[in-house]
Formats: sequence, structure tokens, C-alpha cells
Amino acid sequence: MGKYREDVVVSSRVRLARNMDDTSFKERLGPSLGKKLASEVYGALGGEKAGYALIDLASGDPIDGRVLKEKRLISEDLLANKHSGAVVLNEEETVSVMVGEEDHIRIQSILSGFTIAECYEVANKLDDAIAKKVPFAFHDRLGFLTTCPTNLGTGLRASAMMFLPALSIYNSLSDCVNAISRLNMAIRGVYGEGSESSGYLYQLSNQLTLGLSEQEILDSVTTSVLRIEEAELQARDLLFKEGGAGFKDKIGRALGILLHAYKLESAEFMQAMALTKLGAYYGLITIGDMQVFERLMIDVQPASLQTISGKPLKPEERDIFRAKYVSQILKTIM
Amino acid sequence: MGKYREDVVVSSRVRLARNMDDTSFKERLGPSLGKKLASEVYGALGGEKAGYALIDLASGDPIDGRVLKEKRLISEDLLANKHSGAVVLNEEETVSVMVGEEDHIRIQSILSGFTIAECYEVANKLDDAIAKKVPFAFHDRLGFLTTCPTNLGTGLRASAMMFLPALSIYNSLSDCVNAISRLNMAIRGVYGEGSESSGYLYQLSNQLTLGLSEQEILDSVTTSVLRIEEAELQARDLLFKEGGAGFKDKIGRALGILLHAYKLESAEFMQAMALTKLGAYYGLITIGDMQVFERLMIDVQPASLQTISGKPLKPEERDIFRAKYVSQILKTIM
Repeated sequence: MGKYREDVVVSSRVRLARNMDDTSFKERLGPSLGKKLASEVYGALGGEKAGYALIDLASGDPIDGRVLKEKRLISEDLLANKHSGAVVLNEEETVSVMVGEEDHIRIQSILSGFTIAECYEVANKLDDAIAKKVPFAFHDRLGFLTTCPTNLGTGLRASAMMFLPALSIYNSLSDCVNAISRLNMAIRGVYGEGSESSGYLYQLSNQLTLGLSEQEILDSVTTSVLRIEEAELQARDLLFKEGGAGFKDKIGRALGILLHAYKLESAEFMQAMALTKLGAYYGLITIGDMQVFERLMIDVQPASLQTISGKPLKPEERDIFRAKYVSQILKTIM
Repeated sequence: MGKYREDVVVSSRVRLARNMDDTSFKERLGPSLGKKLASEVYGALGGEKAGYALIDLASGDPIDGRVLKEKRLISEDLLANKHSGAVVLNEEETVSVMVGEEDHIRIQSILSGFTIAECYEVANKLDDAIAKKVPFAFHDRLGFLTTCPTNLGTGLRASAMMFLPALSIYNSLSDCVNAISRLNMAIRGVYGEGSESSGYLYQLSNQLTLGLSEQEILDSVTTSVLRIEEAELQARDLLFKEGGAGFKDKIGRALGILLHAYKLESAEFMQAMALTKLGAYYGLITIGDMQVFERLMIDVQPASLQTISGKPLKPEERDIFRAKYVSQILKTIM
């Protein structure tokens, strides 16, 4: 199963919610407290020497914040409260510490593939380093205190971004989640509205943070990911058998659109990328560099695309530029 | 205008209808008379030494006859009466003399591009050669006698296969034909039902064969082709301006389908080829070898495709084989 794992689990993420014990977290940090805390966090992690950058969202080009949001390095919440918000990022963009979000500090570690244990290890070290400089609000019985009670205790949210085309197409994702209901997992579409996901990408994460140890949470998420992964791989086999020539045709035409369309909307792009990736899983399509392929999904979102083009783009111009860029990048890896 | 000519006029054709003066042409030639005449025609043209082949349609694999029909070297009529039918072909398949069609002999010369004068020159020489061995039915006042009165006189039908996407899309083909109505031309779709043409391919030919000299007929067809060609090129400019990004997108996606579909029906193939060719005219797509591209339109018709695959194909297998073959050939010229 190992060789398939990255075909299903695109990336893993661990987030720790923390708050200062000497400052209220009922309201947002103001701009001055926010700036001060961000600077302390930046220092605690070793600053520029250690490869970190401190990004003040209030100053600078607003598009930069939107790009970070599209890369899922910061949240919509932080972007909406950017007057008091900042983020500390490492060069590889695998570490993101948001300051001034719903909680004072949100430590995040993000890595490719099924790497929840590794993500936790990284986040834990960041947590230790910051804790040495910033005293955290901690209660002997409740654990780490958080703005929203759903994060109390460990403040830990472990999640896996899963590519689940076959379960989506068969509409059996909710059955899978029900089957592991005692593990209390939440699953939601990464892109698109509601439970629908335009690229068949879903985020699976723990709902409980209180009453369990960190290891118990990580274990339950791991168990859930493995169960869903297995169900997805079985569904993929079935889909291939049942889909026949019509399904292969759909996959081929999706690639044709990515390589040859003159304009390409975001939703169609996501759908075509998902089918192409599925085609690669089935061996129908060869993708030379999967990392470049995955990054493309982020790069062609509106703000990122505008940054690449170097100028503001109207919607139709954006669709034209997206089509050109997608075709150009894909041709280098196919 | 010269450089555009082949973008509009795909090929030219001249046909001469002839009958033997000592044999009735109210009914079909029987098998024995048919065979005898075919052999005389074959001999008159110089036979194998001169690069000709005599093909007896009654014997041999029926698929061979259908392939010749798809290549437009023989008519549906000859195929339907193959017990008394045969055809003499040259190696390049630019000459086809049908024996036992509606008329005893139909001499055809077919060349790429706008070459009506050259086609007539070839057909005229064939006519002279055959006339030396086979006395033709000829009337001093009426000229050559034919089975159907619409071919009386010269027995000459000169035609041009024209690629008219812009006039078709603008629905202005009938206006063009009306504008040259005094020239008495007929225009019809080469593929597809009725006046619709799936690949925007139309055959323009003279309706009158009587009361005009050969040269007058050739001149009136030439004038008509030039008028329609001019209208088509103007319509193409307009289409490009008015179509904008949506039109370019349609062209790009058509090429994407040709290169990446897993199955491809004939009508969709024709439409996509037409749009791709139009894309090449506009400089949006580069086609390395236009002859290979044009030949593909013939090669992927049912009987020809079956001959290439080397085995009988069910409809879905044929669509899958067509998609694979089209993609493979196009990749060599793009």
C-alpha cells in the first residue's frame, strides 16, 4: 500500500492553538500587541538566521496576504483581522505561525504526503521554543486555554488533505465517515462550496481536542486516514472496472483541456487536474514531477496567478492567462 | 491571395461521362460486358506498365471497395452495382476510371488544391486514349450521349472540394451561391447529411453540361470557386475578430480532443479536425505536414480504419482505435 499512499494523502498538517496567559483572548489583539507578540515569536524561533520571515499583513501589498491564504499558510480569519495579524514563515513554507488569529498564536506544520507524525514533531519543537519566551495560558485540569472551547485541552488539530475522487464519484464518502464515527473525525471539502469539493480534495481532522492525549489524537487521525485511504483505493479499482472506455475518455479529454484550452475557469481547471491525477494513478497518463503538478493547483488561484503575471487581471484575462500558464507548466512535466 | 488558396480549395476533380456507341446504356452492363470493357480501358491506358491497376469489385474483399468509396475514388453507385463494375486506378490515386457505373465509363482526375485546369488536362488525355480503343456514343448536335440527360453534351463535371468553415458558421453559404446563380453551380456537403457538412467541406460543381464548351464550363467553375473563396476569406477575418477568446478556446479544445480523447466518433472527429485546420489558418496551431493532416480525414473513416487495424472492429472499438490512431498521427506532425 505504501506506494499508493501519496496518491491519496496529498499533505498532512498539525496545528496547535495557544494564547498568552497575561493577555485577554476574549477580544482580538490590537495592532500594537499583535506586532509585539509576532516579534517575540519570530525571535523565539531564531529569526532570519534560522530561516524565518516575519510578515506583517497590515502593511505591504494586500495581494501578498491573499497569496498566503491560497497557499493555505494563513487563514481567512487572519486575513480578515490583518490589522493585528502577522505570520512567521520558514523558507520552505512548511512552518507557519499565525499571530492574532482567533487565538493569539497558531502554530502550524505542513508537509507533503502522509506525515502526521512528522508534522507533530515539528510543531512540538516550535511550541517548546515559543513557550520559553511566551508564557501560555494553561489550566491544570483543562490544559491549554483557547478562545473557542472546541480547541481546549491540547489545542491540537491534526489533519490530512486527501484526494478522494472515487469515493466522491460513488457518493460514499459520508458512509466512510459514519463507519468511523466513534473516532469523531470531521471531513470537509478543501475547495468549493459546502461538502462538495471541486478537485475531490477533502480535509480530514479530529474534532476532539479535550480529554485525549496528543498521542491519542494523532493515533485516531492516523487510523481514520488509513481506513478512508483503503476505501478510496478499493473504490478506485471498482471505478476503473465499471467506468470502461467512457471513463478513460473523460480522463483523456480532461488532460486535453488542460493542455489546449485557450481559457480556463478555476472550477473546470480543478476538475480536470483531479481527473488527470487519477489518470496518472491508473497509469493512463505520465506525470513526470508530481510536486510541480500539485503546486500548479495553488499557483493558478486568482491572487497567485496575478502575482505570477505581474499585473492585475480581469476575470477573462485571468482565465486566458491561467490556460496559458497551466499548459506551459504541464508541458514541462509530461 | 495565392498563399491562402489551399486553405480553402482542398482538392479539384474533373469527371467525363462516356458510353459505348454499340451497346445500350439504358440498362447496366452485365458482368461479362463489364469485365470486357474494363479490360479494354485498362489496355487503352497502358495497363500495368503505365502504372495502372485494374480492380474487379465483384471479387476480392468487400471492404476494399468501401475503402475506395471512402477515398472518393469510386461512387456509391458503382459499389451498389459491383457485379458489373470495375475501376482502373493509377498508383498515385489521382486517376480513377469507373466502368459499369450509371454510364459505361466515367473518367476522373483528382488533384490536391485548386487545380481544375490540370485535372481537365489529365482527364482529356485519358479520354483521347480510351476513345482510340472504345468508340463513344456521340451525337452531332447533342454531343456525348449519357444515361441521364443532365450529363449530356460534354459529359463534364468539374468540381472543387472547398473548406468553408466561416461561411458555414455565419450561415451565408446559400447567399454566396445565390450571388453566382447565373453560373448554375451546385454546392453540397461532402460528408454528413443533406446540406450540412460535418467537416465544413463542400463540393462545388457545374450543373450544366450541355450548350457550353468544355472551356466555358471550366471557366464558370473557376470563377465561382474564386468568388466563394474570397467570401470565405472575408468571413474568416470577421469570425476571428468577432469570435474573441471564446472562439480561440473552441479551437484549442478541439485540438485537445483530437490529441487526448480515448474514443472519438466520426462526426466529432470531423468537427475537431475542421476547427484545428482553421486554427492553423489563423496561426494559432502549427501543422507540420498538411497532406498527412488531410489524409487523416479519409484514413479514419470506418472501412479505411478497419483496414489499418487489420481486423473487424465493433463501433466502440472503432471509436477507440480512431482516437488512438488520430492522436498518434497528429503527434508526428505537431
